[in-house]
Amino acid sequence: MSKELPVTYSQLVKTCDKLERHYREPQDLEFTVEQGKFYMLQTRSAKMNAVGMVRTSVEMVKEKLISKERAILRLQPEQLEQLLHKTIDTQAVKNHPTLVRGIAASPVFDVKKAVKMGEDGVKVVLVREETKPEDVPAFFASVGILTSRGGKTSHAAVVARGMGKPCVVGCSDMKIDYETKKFQVDSKTVFEGEVITLDGSNGSVFLGEIPTIEPHLTDEFKTILRWAEEIKRLGIRANVDTPEAAKLARTYGAKGIGLCRTERMFNARDRLGLFVDMIMAKTIEERKQVLEKLKVLQKSDFKEILKVMERYPVTIRLLDPPLHEFLPNIEELINRVHNLEKQNASEELANTKKILARARELAEINPMMGHRGVRVGITFPEIYEMQIRAICEAAGELAKEKIDARAQIMVPQVGSVDELNEIKRIYDSIKSNVESSLGMKLKINFGTMLEVVRSCLTADEIAKTAEFFSFGTNDLTQAVFSFSREDAEGKFLSEYMEKEILTENPFQSLDVNGVGSLMEIAIAKGKQLRPNLEIGICGEHGGDPNSIKFCHKAGLSYVSASSHRIPIAILAAAQAALLEKSEKKRRKTKTRKKSKEKIVLNQN
Amino acid sequence: MSKELPVTYSQLVKTCDKLERHYREPQDLEFTVEQGKFYMLQTRSAKMNAVGMVRTSVEMVKEKLISKERAILRLQPEQLEQLLHKTIDTQAVKNHPTLVRGIAASPVFDVKKAVKMGEDGVKVVLVREETKPEDVPAFFASVGILTSRGGKTSHAAVVARGMGKPCVVGCSDMKIDYETKKFQVDSKTVFEGEVITLDGSNGSVFLGEIPTIEPHLTDEFKTILRWAEEIKRLGIRANVDTPEAAKLARTYGAKGIGLCRTERMFNARDRLGLFVDMIMAKTIEERKQVLEKLKVLQKSDFKEILKVMERYPVTIRLLDPPLHEFLPNIEELINRVHNLEKQNASEELANTKKILARARELAEINPMMGHRGVRVGITFPEIYEMQIRAICEAAGELAKEKIDARAQIMVPQVGSVDELNEIKRIYDSIKSNVESSLGMKLKINFGTMLEVVRSCLTADEIAKTAEFFSFGTNDLTQAVFSFSREDAEGKFLSEYMEKEILTENPFQSLDVNGVGSLMEIAIAKGKQLRPNLEIGICGEHGGDPNSIKFCHKAGLSYVSASSHRIPIAILAAAQAALLEKSEKKRRKTKTRKKSKEKIVLNQN
Repeated sequence: MSKELPVTYSQLVKTCDKLERHYREPQDLEFTVEQGKFYMLQTRSAKMNAVGMVRTSVEMVKEKLISKERAILRLQPEQLEQLLHKTIDTQAVKNHPTLVRGIAASPVFDVKKAVKMGEDGVKVVLVREETKPEDVPAFFASVGILTSRGGKTSHAAVVARGMGKPCVVGCSDMKIDYETKKFQVDSKTVFEGEVITLDGSNGSVFLGEIPTIEPHLTDEFKTILRWAEEIKRLGIRANVDTPEAAKLARTYGAKGIGLCRTERMFNARDRLGLFVDMIMAKTIEERKQVLEKLKVLQKSDFKEILKVMERYPVTIRLLDPPLHEFLPNIEELINRVHNLEKQNASEELANTKKILARARELAEINPMMGHRGVRVGITFPEIYEMQIRAICEAAGELAKEKIDARAQIMVPQVGSVDELNEIKRIYDSIKSNVESSLGMKLKINFGTMLEVVRSCLTADEIAKTAEFFSFGTNDLTQAVFSFSREDAEGKFLSEYMEKEILTENPFQSLDVNGVGSLMEIAIAKGKQLRPNLEIGICGEHGGDPNSIKFCHKAGLSYVSASSHRIPIAILAAAQAALLEKSEKKRRKTKTRKKSKEKIVLNQN
Repeated sequence: MSKELPVTYSQLVKTCDKLERHYREPQDLEFTVEQGKFYMLQTRSAKMNAVGMVRTSVEMVKEKLISKERAILRLQPEQLEQLLHKTIDTQAVKNHPTLVRGIAASPVFDVKKAVKMGEDGVKVVLVREETKPEDVPAFFASVGILTSRGGKTSHAAVVARGMGKPCVVGCSDMKIDYETKKFQVDSKTVFEGEVITLDGSNGSVFLGEIPTIEPHLTDEFKTILRWAEEIKRLGIRANVDTPEAAKLARTYGAKGIGLCRTERMFNARDRLGLFVDMIMAKTIEERKQVLEKLKVLQKSDFKEILKVMERYPVTIRLLDPPLHEFLPNIEELINRVHNLEKQNASEELANTKKILARARELAEINPMMGHRGVRVGITFPEIYEMQIRAICEAAGELAKEKIDARAQIMVPQVGSVDELNEIKRIYDSIKSNVESSLGMKLKINFGTMLEVVRSCLTADEIAKTAEFFSFGTNDLTQAVFSFSREDAEGKFLSEYMEKEILTENPFQSLDVNGVGSLMEIAIAKGKQLRPNLEIGICGEHGGDPNSIKFCHKAGLSYVSASSHRIPIAILAAAQAALLEKSEKKRRKTKTRKKSKEKIVLNQN
């Protein structure tokens, strides 16, 4: 429902006060120009598509109809996301039969993200009548989800959206036969192993693999981003783990890496085996031997990433997940043991039993709050030692090559300064060791994630050792709500949204009242000790426009987002700066009015 | 190492200033009287046993050598715990051969607590060479733990201590044979199924069941408690779930129940089956039918407990654990399926498979932060409806019998006021329904646990609906540290203590810096809205002397502890009040001195 009011530019200027109010919620307001007249569209629905909005914005500025500031404010960052994802090649589509049309559950078509999980080559689309919480592990391993039942708030839709995976739900024409492993749409039958393509943006399912088009930034978009760059105060960094992703992040405008997850480097096929050997090692010596091999690989990764990001900070997070995450799942191992027993395969059986025993030893009741992050670093110091040495050597060797590499070491899951100090001791000794062997001084910042509630509450103590903070708002949200994300999204979050107990998924948009207030406590305590402390955010929220507004207000130094959200983050950061400015102006006007009233009163 | 200084009473009075300092750490100081002289023992080790300390305290007051206040301050609450546990009958011991002597890992011999777990009649002592994290589930099911290896900081010792279970570790004379299920000490062999008795207080293991002696309060102890009652400001309530435990709590001096866990009532043999039926129900109707049967049982429990606690508040917590906790464990079910398949037991197989499917459906990755507490209440409202109705009817029927029952309904795991409001609506409607059918008004307070970080951060919003708060410091500690208690105690906490990253186990003694500061935020926010808000604590910390001192300072209304710690809590609460008084006095003196100095300066 939109009410269109044709107005001229001068009329528009007269309604300035009203506009000012709208500017605080830019999605409330859109303009369009037709035959020299402005149309103000009082609507929440997107009337123009993203490309059009960007183009008209730039054109209106060129025609001096609006200022650069207004051009930036009239854009909806979320809407622009579609410009930054791979899309299906509409030319190529013509050669592929559409199988079925369902409800588009996720407006994203980012296969890459999902593919990472199945790096050993198998891309899987999970096909079910409907999904249940027990299917969630399969979501992680799939590149997309397709169901024959359910709507936009169905389990599959909610979970897939949370994971950013393409998902098509409610394809009622599709008949699935689990026994013979096939599904049928009209006369067409698709068997397991055949390739299908999902278009999450409009709910289409195609037979065969359809070429996708890499996103590219239009010139107008680049112009908008340049303007936004000049206006924003927040720094923008990227969450990336590979040199390729780092390159992409730079093209999109990232000035540094806010989160480089070292464990992702172990998931590649050639490395996972080594990592498992490390976990299975019977003695420290054996473990150290394997770690030595891993160090060579990690160092070369670090060097490449640091090189791509030359002159910009690269924050490298030491190992975070619990070790058992790298072993096969226990249930799977038990079934394997039972089957091997039936087959009398004694050698493999013995080996599987060994892995099972180790997996049981490492198993945890609540892995999210268990033996991970700095806790692993403290109990298996040789792992962090290897990583810290790899970083120091990489930084040092690049410096020798006159490359301005700016590594930062970030410790995850810290809850007390004593934990951080324990790692700091290791870091200091390795650093000075590398320095003396290379004959040079290294400048590597040492800091911590703030993702444990206790670290926020004791940020003044933590800041004694930490040279920078970076909020891990994903884990922080889990801890503040006592929600395990996968369980919450799988079990009750959709019902919470339906019943309006939550208006937004706190894992997508930062919970300002709860998580935000804890962050403010941490910021105040940290800056109390180090007024110029660098404080960033590297959770998924770093790419969410509303959360970015909060980060700006809270006085953060930067936000770090995944590559494809960098331009959105730049735009949102500029909007936050503009809104703050207009907010200040309004407050000043109010104060002036009040003081005038006072004078009047006094004169009386 | 103790240095004894014989001093007379007058000398003692002269060293008053020093004493004052010592009083803040009463365990630093002990007296003894010999031949009319005082001996001040500068020692931390307990020179006198608990009975003696209590007796001399009372005697010294009677002889007007010390004040009541000093008598209370010189006692170490922790030391008194041994007076409140079952002990082995030393007379009966003579008839039983001692098998082996190890290191006493847990100074507690409270079989009752452990027995509860195996309410179906099987008392088990877990016997292992050493224990590993994978054995932790067995700890819960055992009444005691016995190992042949390890010391006081071994896994078995740390975990058992955390659970309050008797544990004897490091019995190197004991040879265990897992295959034939027996262990041997010298020439004696003990087979599985034979009965042994552990004395956790001194590390003895006996053959056979040795009678135990129920603790009883000596007259002197009762006198001390009476004096403490007059001095303390904190209220003392008990964590109990049965009428018998409630009676014991009253003899020990509890004035109310701070935590009655309704789920414990489902664990009895005759009820667990019903509860499982409820979980397995295919439709809401089917579920409601089973719930109707459970309501009858719960109501009668509530009536009995409320009757025992007449005139005192009884805080009843609605269902807290996740539903899957009531089903057999998945691994066990998988093994059962494999075995039944081998035996071709088709009917039982089908049934087991059904339970396995449901267990999988309900399974969670991090159950601690999953679908539990109020989240179950919101998604399965019929469960909370049943419980609320049972409480309302119990309270109403007792009121008809002129019994002054004071039920309070407490909602667990609340993170936002919207969750609480959702349950409040259910409560309001059921209450008015019961009121009209009984033709009377009911006075039942409606409040919430504060055990989710977010509820503390938004306590001002929560207090709009909650008529009382009760800190669940166990869960709060887990959330603040991001430590899952079982995983932390099983995996890394002992190493943290060894490396002095933690000086105390935060699950035993409240972490004032982290958890405490969050509690202070919640208290301030809650009282901002309701200045007289009742705020208690019902976590295990409610029975820990140091934590009780914090609770007193923080201005809590009461602490709630398990029955056997009630006298300790009373004493610790009195000590806290006295310490505060002396602290204030000292500050006043300082201020007076300072102002005198000022005057002098001014005169100059």
